[in-house]
Amino acid sequence: MSGSEIEAIRALLGSKPRPVGWPARRQRIEEVGAHWPVASDMTLQAVDLDGVPGECSIAPGSRTERVLMFFHGGGYCSGSLRSHRRLVTEAGRAGGLRTLAVGYRLAPEHPFPAALDDAVAAWRWLRRQGIAARDIVVGGDSAGGGLSVVLINALRAAGEEGPACAWLISPWTDLTQSGATMATKDAVDPLIHKGYLGELADAYAPVGMDRRDPRLSPLFADLRGLPPSLIQVGSEETLLADATRFAEAAGAANVAVTLEVWPHMIHAWPMWNAGLAPGRQALARAGAFMRDHLD
Amino acid sequence: MSGSEIEAIRALLGSKPRPVGWPARRQRIEEVGAHWPVASDMTLQAVDLDGVPGECSIAPGSRTERVLMFFHGGGYCSGSLRSHRRLVTEAGRAGGLRTLAVGYRLAPEHPFPAALDDAVAAWRWLRRQGIAARDIVVGGDSAGGGLSVVLINALRAAGEEGPACAWLISPWTDLTQSGATMATKDAVDPLIHKGYLGELADAYAPVGMDRRDPRLSPLFADLRGLPPSLIQVGSEETLLADATRFAEAAGAANVAVTLEVWPHMIHAWPMWNAGLAPGRQALARAGAFMRDHLD
Repeated sequence: MSGSEIEAIRALLGSKPRPVGWPARRQRIEEVGAHWPVASDMTLQAVDLDGVPGECSIAPGSRTERVLMFFHGGGYCSGSLRSHRRLVTEAGRAGGLRTLAVGYRLAPEHPFPAALDDAVAAWRWLRRQGIAARDIVVGGDSAGGGLSVVLINALRAAGEEGPACAWLISPWTDLTQSGATMATKDAVDPLIHKGYLGELADAYAPVGMDRRDPRLSPLFADLRGLPPSLIQVGSEETLLADATRFAEAAGAANVAVTLEVWPHMIHAWPMWNAGLAPGRQALARAGAFMRDHLD
Repeated sequence: MSGSEIEAIRALLGSKPRPVGWPARRQRIEEVGAHWPVASDMTLQAVDLDGVPGECSIAPGSRTERVLMFFHGGGYCSGSLRSHRRLVTEAGRAGGLRTLAVGYRLAPEHPFPAALDDAVAAWRWLRRQGIAARDIVVGGDSAGGGLSVVLINALRAAGEEGPACAWLISPWTDLTQSGATMATKDAVDPLIHKGYLGELADAYAPVGMDRRDPRLSPLFADLRGLPPSLIQVGSEETLLADATRFAEAAGAANVAVTLEVWPHMIHAWPMWNAGLAPGRQALARAGAFMRDHLD
């Protein structure tokens, strides 16, 4: 592994002062997320998911009847189809399938349950296109990883068939911030800190709603019936314990769980796959996982 | 996954009353471990590892210059070359390499550090045969998984090169029994319970030695520098949290960790690979992991 690559990503992330306020934060995640363009052989198409903006991608040779439905990170308050385009499209290439990125509504303008409502709408739209549930992977990074689990739980509660498998990158599973690594990894995580996460949780969770509610913090959900799940997390993340505790909880609930901890990697590192070999390697592992669980 | 297969294993394990006393326990683990014979195409050879009994195996087509050094489970008090022969030999086939099973001394006759001393002796013997450290996988199940980590830590402390990777099945990493699943999985685990583990710890740990000593409980060791590690554990184990907490601790120490939780599986289920598809599947995953990390 090249240490200089991850240092270059850290330098990119630290090249400007930390943004203040939602507009500046949203602009910044687009800048750093879209630092590398989408590969030139990728085909993109904007789609309207019953009012929720979406974007499909397909790499040469990928199978169009299989879909990775992807929820971007950004703490439910930032992130977009644009910021995560390189991540989503390359994940589709790795898995040999079509992707459908979901541009769900963001807090604070649209707090819970807007994101979940949009996720359910996108799922149902996709199913109505004739895509079988067993041909769908649901995945996301950070808040999008948490939202993925919340969506799957909501489908189960509604008696609907869920996806073939779930892929969670650096998932934010605990809005109460009770993980030990919130403190122990604070000094090495360049992105996610307690104060920032607190602001995000305040913006997303309605006043008076218990932060332990499993629709906010899927770590505390009844996870029985979750499909096989791959969880990938970096070792240098305050959210490391959100991933490891979720792996333990899901595993204890008889879910087929694979957890990978990637040494020296930071929050949502596969975002920067164009310039980071462990980002490409993580996507290759995720792609193999998707192929194994479709069909 | 066939639920009837794991039920048949549970029936095998429960077909006789729980044995009392070390001789009866040792006999019982040989009975249930050797319930299925070694495959007829496997070549076995007894070896003397400077006084420690060992056994090599090689499957047709496997590479003889690569070695899986394996430490059987049995709580440091039982288990043998014979009881784990089917597990070790099929792991070698899956990884396409030679195996060397180590018949280390057992407690209570030989408490700590006898097992560790024998492990170090076996490692040094193997290196003296001209096998490169980068061509060796160290692995084990249950107490043998814990011993694997303790051996690697001891090599590092001695300034010696360690193995290419580690493979831990249902590892016993915490002799203080502080994992939450000691209680929450007690009713579904057919093998490992608090009282039994307490007897094993009493037999292995010298009087007055802190059970948190990292040479007894590698969960509490400084794990920096551990090689890439695959940890496989069943969901229906009291030792589930020994695996998940170890994955979190090693991952936090910048070790490349993969943790797999196998639904509905019991302690050290790959032992019964001959009659259990998820046992064979787990060995296939372990074999792929070994191949990925050798060369």
